[in-house]
Amino acid sequence: MTVTDLDTYRKFGSPLEGHPAVKFKYVDVATGSLGQGLSIGVGMALDIRQECQMSNVKCQMWPKVYVLMGDSETSEGSVWEAIELASYYKLGNLVGIIDVNRLGQSGPTMLGWDVGEYKKRVEAFGWQTHIIDGHDLGATAKSFDLLPDGTDKPQMIIAKTIKGKGVSFLENKEDWHGKALSQEQFEEAVKELGKIDRAVKGEIARPVSSIKYEVSRKDTKYKILNTRYKLGEMVATRKAYGEVITALGAINSDIVCLDAEVKNSTYALIFKEKFPERFFEMFIAEQNMVSAALGFSKRGKIPFVSTFAAFLTRALDQIRMASYSNADVKFVGSHAGVSIGEDGPSQMGLEDISMFRSIFGSYVLCPGDAVSCRELVEVAANTKGLFYIRTARPATPVIYARGEKFKIGGSKVIRSSKADKLTIVACGIALIESIKAADELAKLGIKVRLVDAYSVKPIDEAGIKKAARETNNLLITVEDHYAQGGLGDAVLNVFANSSQSHSRSAQSSTHAHSGSVARGVRIYKLAVSKMPMSGKSEELLDYEQISQKAIVKKVLEICK
Amino acid sequence: MTVTDLDTYRKFGSPLEGHPAVKFKYVDVATGSLGQGLSIGVGMALDIRQECQMSNVKCQMWPKVYVLMGDSETSEGSVWEAIELASYYKLGNLVGIIDVNRLGQSGPTMLGWDVGEYKKRVEAFGWQTHIIDGHDLGATAKSFDLLPDGTDKPQMIIAKTIKGKGVSFLENKEDWHGKALSQEQFEEAVKELGKIDRAVKGEIARPVSSIKYEVSRKDTKYKILNTRYKLGEMVATRKAYGEVITALGAINSDIVCLDAEVKNSTYALIFKEKFPERFFEMFIAEQNMVSAALGFSKRGKIPFVSTFAAFLTRALDQIRMASYSNADVKFVGSHAGVSIGEDGPSQMGLEDISMFRSIFGSYVLCPGDAVSCRELVEVAANTKGLFYIRTARPATPVIYARGEKFKIGGSKVIRSSKADKLTIVACGIALIESIKAADELAKLGIKVRLVDAYSVKPIDEAGIKKAARETNNLLITVEDHYAQGGLGDAVLNVFANSSQSHSRSAQSSTHAHSGSVARGVRIYKLAVSKMPMSGKSEELLDYEQISQKAIVKKVLEICK
Repeated sequence: MTVTDLDTYRKFGSPLEGHPAVKFKYVDVATGSLGQGLSIGVGMALDIRQECQMSNVKCQMWPKVYVLMGDSETSEGSVWEAIELASYYKLGNLVGIIDVNRLGQSGPTMLGWDVGEYKKRVEAFGWQTHIIDGHDLGATAKSFDLLPDGTDKPQMIIAKTIKGKGVSFLENKEDWHGKALSQEQFEEAVKELGKIDRAVKGEIARPVSSIKYEVSRKDTKYKILNTRYKLGEMVATRKAYGEVITALGAINSDIVCLDAEVKNSTYALIFKEKFPERFFEMFIAEQNMVSAALGFSKRGKIPFVSTFAAFLTRALDQIRMASYSNADVKFVGSHAGVSIGEDGPSQMGLEDISMFRSIFGSYVLCPGDAVSCRELVEVAANTKGLFYIRTARPATPVIYARGEKFKIGGSKVIRSSKADKLTIVACGIALIESIKAADELAKLGIKVRLVDAYSVKPIDEAGIKKAARETNNLLITVEDHYAQGGLGDAVLNVFANSSQSHSRSAQSSTHAHSGSVARGVRIYKLAVSKMPMSGKSEELLDYEQISQKAIVKKVLEICK
Repeated sequence: MTVTDLDTYRKFGSPLEGHPAVKFKYVDVATGSLGQGLSIGVGMALDIRQECQMSNVKCQMWPKVYVLMGDSETSEGSVWEAIELASYYKLGNLVGIIDVNRLGQSGPTMLGWDVGEYKKRVEAFGWQTHIIDGHDLGATAKSFDLLPDGTDKPQMIIAKTIKGKGVSFLENKEDWHGKALSQEQFEEAVKELGKIDRAVKGEIARPVSSIKYEVSRKDTKYKILNTRYKLGEMVATRKAYGEVITALGAINSDIVCLDAEVKNSTYALIFKEKFPERFFEMFIAEQNMVSAALGFSKRGKIPFVSTFAAFLTRALDQIRMASYSNADVKFVGSHAGVSIGEDGPSQMGLEDISMFRSIFGSYVLCPGDAVSCRELVEVAANTKGLFYIRTARPATPVIYARGEKFKIGGSKVIRSSKADKLTIVACGIALIESIKAADELAKLGIKVRLVDAYSVKPIDEAGIKKAARETNNLLITVEDHYAQGGLGDAVLNVFANSSQSHSRSAQSSTHAHSGSVARGVRIYKLAVSKMPMSGKSEELLDYEQISQKAIVKKVLEICK
């Protein structure tokens, strides 16, 4: 990096942004939202440990992961999730450094300079700690030398420092967070800093790289899968996920699974039973799980992260930051929608599609049966990027034959005739209800087109436009999700033609804003809109008017 | 509660849901998403402490707040956020109980039955702990008797228990989480339980209620405000928030402010300076802040919760659960959009509107200037419910005169003529850009209607439909937010007429699904769609094509 590079700092187009961004080539993960670094480090250290153990590398030789933290950010719960898990997994190859300068952005931290308090708390969680004077560069260097190799205790260096040290008008003063100096102040500061002992200036020894790790992603193609679902067989998509990821895991050893203590519900358990060494129980700590997955992905692994769709909301900030780090992570949210039944609203993922659609550059897939789930999990494993796959709780019939192909941005026409009065666009459980509705309507002499919009983002604009054109420009969308931000909104956008896909480059911008005509298209949305509750799956689908019955009623209403 | 009530458990319409819900009259806050209870307790205990201190109630007399937790949920970072803050605020009136039964849903917990480990960790954070045998009811009762009064240490009871105790085929066994017994197993279990010592059976003494607390919400009307903004004056909406909430705080002593260590950026600092006793520094721990605010609201306070819009994403799960608890909480997200400039994407709220729109029963308000911000903050304070108010970083001109009125579900026509070619719908910073664009277009002889859609949810359906009707059914939406789930999608839904408001009652369901006609309406969406970066505010608005220049260009393109 040159001085000229530095001059671009915080300027438009510079790789040196206001907070570290991955477009600066030495940065692997974006930062700026606090308390996520240690979790990313946990993922990297876990992966290194796993690789080393499998290659019989002695633990004394394991490469270490270092994470620098501010004291103020250690108040984030996610830091303690990382601390507890690092200790549980005995990550002796993880080193944290807390810069204790006592000052946050707007005032003193909770613990101030009480490094003893930090030590007590971190040690209580099973870490080894080292208190140092962060301004004594010799002592700092020495503390790194003295870090034990081959321990099973993660290591925390607690460095007491003074913010603005060496400049009288900055030193240990509040209200200087993120502020630049005036030219006059700058000159004064340089003058004062001149007095500082610069004895330790000089070359920094480069570490000897004794072990080389491959971090590039294998582009495995998956040809054979053991999972064979028969038409009409009752299989929950969540169960299909578990079976498929296990089959894929047998082909590509880079696939790892992380789950937040619900593996028997998400069916990640099947993978764990086959590949215990590549399954990581992350316990009930979703934030740490998401950032750790980012750590795995930055080492070339393909992490699949599962929990209830509802509980992925716990980690939206981490998911958001993962997208800014170009994460290659696959999120799988189970128990989506009111169709879960008796467990009630706290367990129902009803804002998950909305949440993932708003993530920069994401893909959102919502399979309606086991076969499409199988194919879409494979697509996600084969494609770099941040994916969300939505699975459901109830067992539902297999509707696709083996060999049917599914792709990002695709859709499937399930029912079709020349006499179709309108088109129903649905996905997931709502697709199953829509099939039943379409078949009942057919008996009543009313033909409808039915489109499986399994790829919610990007959505199949051409396919949906074609269906609309061929069916009187009349559409009904059905989804087991709140009316905001879900499939219905994705379909509405097809006709506003505001692009739903994000662009990482400045060049491909034209598409995003090209408006288009919605002349004459009528769209009716069926979605969850009443306060959800406990009950049987069918009762709740009826109550929210997204069931077979409600769809039939709506179509009759429109067609009369 | 009668046995008949119990028979409705988990059935459709029952107040006894799969997880506790507020429609059961003894439940104040919904649970089911884990690790949020202690934070709610922190809010309640903080409020009690504050009230008692102000009324000179001796700390020995302070009512206590009790929170029962499962061991498995203590792995959630939010629990440690609550633990650290309770200790910082010396909440001796907060009592936690951890039920250590060693078993999670899908396997053993990290710490198993090691109650000593729980003790060590909790004590390291400054709590006093009490280890008990959770099956010894005498000891349990005694442990409550022995809790010290007037201490400044929060208290944690760590109760070792055995899951399924007393039934041989359940006791300490995995795979029984949330499973019901067969009739045969049930009879066997009852038989085995018969052997248990029932000596402690009997009446439970009711606590003597020596202090009565008013928890009903005052319906204060705010008539006079000290904040007077002049037309054209440059005021950031975030600053207006700080000034207005302080003025409101002088009128209604039930208003409290919580902030996550950015009070000098959100301007909650102004409130703190005036009312230090009603300002709560929650440090960098957004999840705990949100749940604590729910606790405050359940004691009749009106909490305003501020941080960067981007960082509210950290607490989506808590916000979601707050809505299921009928929370009366006002969220204020500052630094929304790319207009923040140099700090880069990690600090930009670009999915906040989407997130809050998908929250059940929420209100989403996005003021474009200081006057509308003033009015909307007042509306939020005066109206029960979960609000989101979005503020921006840059200083922008005041566009409304004093006395202008704003309401939930309202909008304002800012520019209007009989010759309007189309309507621009915008809010926040994008409204300011749109005003400049409209005025420039007027100079070029092109008249456009301009609507300030400050109420994004509910949106002013009638107002927007009227504007569309009167301007060739041609609309452009502009927003400093991602294209997914924001203002543009709210406007699209006006023409799909799928209701954007949620309904808490089963009765008012008809509106939600009444479809309507979008015949002939063309909608163009301008929104953030390229990977955001650092730069000047204007550069970034241009880059994302939501600036004055981009709007003018788009209008010319459409009108040519």
